[in-house]
Amino acid sequence: MSQYVFGVDIGGTTVKLGLFDVTGGLLDKWEIPTRTEDSGSKILPDIAESIKAKIDEKKIAKEEVKGVGVGAPGPIDSAGVVHKAVNLGWETFSIKETLEELLHMPVMAGNDANVAALGEMWKGGGQGSNDLIVVTLGTGVGGGIIIDGKVLTGATGAGGEIGHIHVQDGETEACGCGNKGCLEQYASATGITRLANKKLRESDKNSVLRQGEVSAKTVFDAVKEKDELAIEVAEEFGKYLGDALAVIASVVNPEAIVIGGGVSKAGEILLNYIRPNYEKNVFHGSRNAKFALATLGNDAGIYGAAKLVLDLK
Amino acid sequence: MSQYVFGVDIGGTTVKLGLFDVTGGLLDKWEIPTRTEDSGSKILPDIAESIKAKIDEKKIAKEEVKGVGVGAPGPIDSAGVVHKAVNLGWETFSIKETLEELLHMPVMAGNDANVAALGEMWKGGGQGSNDLIVVTLGTGVGGGIIIDGKVLTGATGAGGEIGHIHVQDGETEACGCGNKGCLEQYASATGITRLANKKLRESDKNSVLRQGEVSAKTVFDAVKEKDELAIEVAEEFGKYLGDALAVIASVVNPEAIVIGGGVSKAGEILLNYIRPNYEKNVFHGSRNAKFALATLGNDAGIYGAAKLVLDLK
Repeated sequence: MSQYVFGVDIGGTTVKLGLFDVTGGLLDKWEIPTRTEDSGSKILPDIAESIKAKIDEKKIAKEEVKGVGVGAPGPIDSAGVVHKAVNLGWETFSIKETLEELLHMPVMAGNDANVAALGEMWKGGGQGSNDLIVVTLGTGVGGGIIIDGKVLTGATGAGGEIGHIHVQDGETEACGCGNKGCLEQYASATGITRLANKKLRESDKNSVLRQGEVSAKTVFDAVKEKDELAIEVAEEFGKYLGDALAVIASVVNPEAIVIGGGVSKAGEILLNYIRPNYEKNVFHGSRNAKFALATLGNDAGIYGAAKLVLDLK
Repeated sequence: MSQYVFGVDIGGTTVKLGLFDVTGGLLDKWEIPTRTEDSGSKILPDIAESIKAKIDEKKIAKEEVKGVGVGAPGPIDSAGVVHKAVNLGWETFSIKETLEELLHMPVMAGNDANVAALGEMWKGGGQGSNDLIVVTLGTGVGGGIIIDGKVLTGATGAGGEIGHIHVQDGETEACGCGNKGCLEQYASATGITRLANKKLRESDKNSVLRQGEVSAKTVFDAVKEKDELAIEVAEEFGKYLGDALAVIASVVNPEAIVIGGGVSKAGEILLNYIRPNYEKNVFHGSRNAKFALATLGNDAGIYGAAKLVLDLK
């Protein structure tokens, strides 16, 4: 009888690991460095060793472990095959098969943002909803779509790429993905900073943002102080993100929309700038979707990875 | 052992019915009028009578029928409950339960556009793909999203409402849904006519469109004759639809995109105006999605409805 499951979240510099009971209680969590040398060939063996060591340490019988779920940055299809993960040095191969050979237990794998979305559905801001849009506003904009309790993986593992939907014609700077005018260029922490710096250059309004370095945090701190220029930046951000969420919701018809990532630390005030734009443009059938902030922070990935394995029939 | 299944497509004036074998062979199809009087209370009893009559006529034993699938115009959730269908006079009730009581056989129900998308996946332009966007360009713009072989129904049955994604700020006319700037206002047959009439008013270019009444058909006929003004209209249409499909695909990551409805009778030339805009703006992971024209025409609904029941475990 399975009693435990491991959730693994592979990042560019560290791998986060969690040991869970089958009800989703987090029993232990730890990190190991991500060794990206040699085309990332050490990453999965390092993870396998770390899990074996934890099994020994906790005196767990191997048959008590249901399996290992893995989230990694890159397109990963529903068979667990990653199609190139630049940050890890990985080309195309099966994460599932490789790790199963190393550990001799069931493995499931998915894109890190999608897996984190599943975590927020299970134990975070999206609890109680089966149809969910999760958007993560960090350095970039990540996302995950949950349909009927399952991650929307897509044909080639590129489902839920909310950050790269096109929202602005005529943009001259390129996004990291190569396109121009992606949501990420306006609604990520970096994007908000960019919007603010542009506004500071073009406006001669007084603003606390003119003192010191500008960041998404200083912008929303200034919004809370009712700084007019910062409010204009927040309105611009909210129009980009609210409009984009309205488009996605008209297709996905979610029960809830969860906003996470570093930018979401600004709190509920963020939603005041997103929701009115959302409500104005979304199809009426999706107008009542709940908005919520993510609650799991950096643990969303290990929670979602664990859930991937628990969902195995 | 089940050998037959019925597919039913309820429209505002007629109900289409089909008798299929379990491999999807269409054995017979026929129509009955949609009686919308008395809040549409006669529609399901009429359908039940018609199915019973067909079972008698074909000398089919009732246990040979796996069930009845139904598509209807309105939001229908995954439990088979319709949440108001204005065209039929329906309020909220369970189509599934009502028809099961009348027929004593399993019933599944879904939104007509979503169900038609399932039909195109199964036996039409999307054959061979499990992740699909289907967009129907008729009087309005309908749509359906297929994820892993299943219709994306959404939390309240409003999934796949592609026609009502917001694509244009500043629009002054309202869409049928109440919003302003929906895709349907530019990419439906009506929308294309509207774009053309606007272009004819604003331009002094010569055009065959200045003779007689303008329609989506005359526009694309003129495009084939290399009429410059008609080409400008087609380019505008293609930008709206290609951009919108790029946004949806960045979220859904489809294997194929199928274009149907009356406007698709213009043929492959239509895709020449949609695809370049799509490819320019979509996330690279979804750039290679195949484009195809729908092939089932008005029968897509009965095919998809039949498939709904065949998918029952």
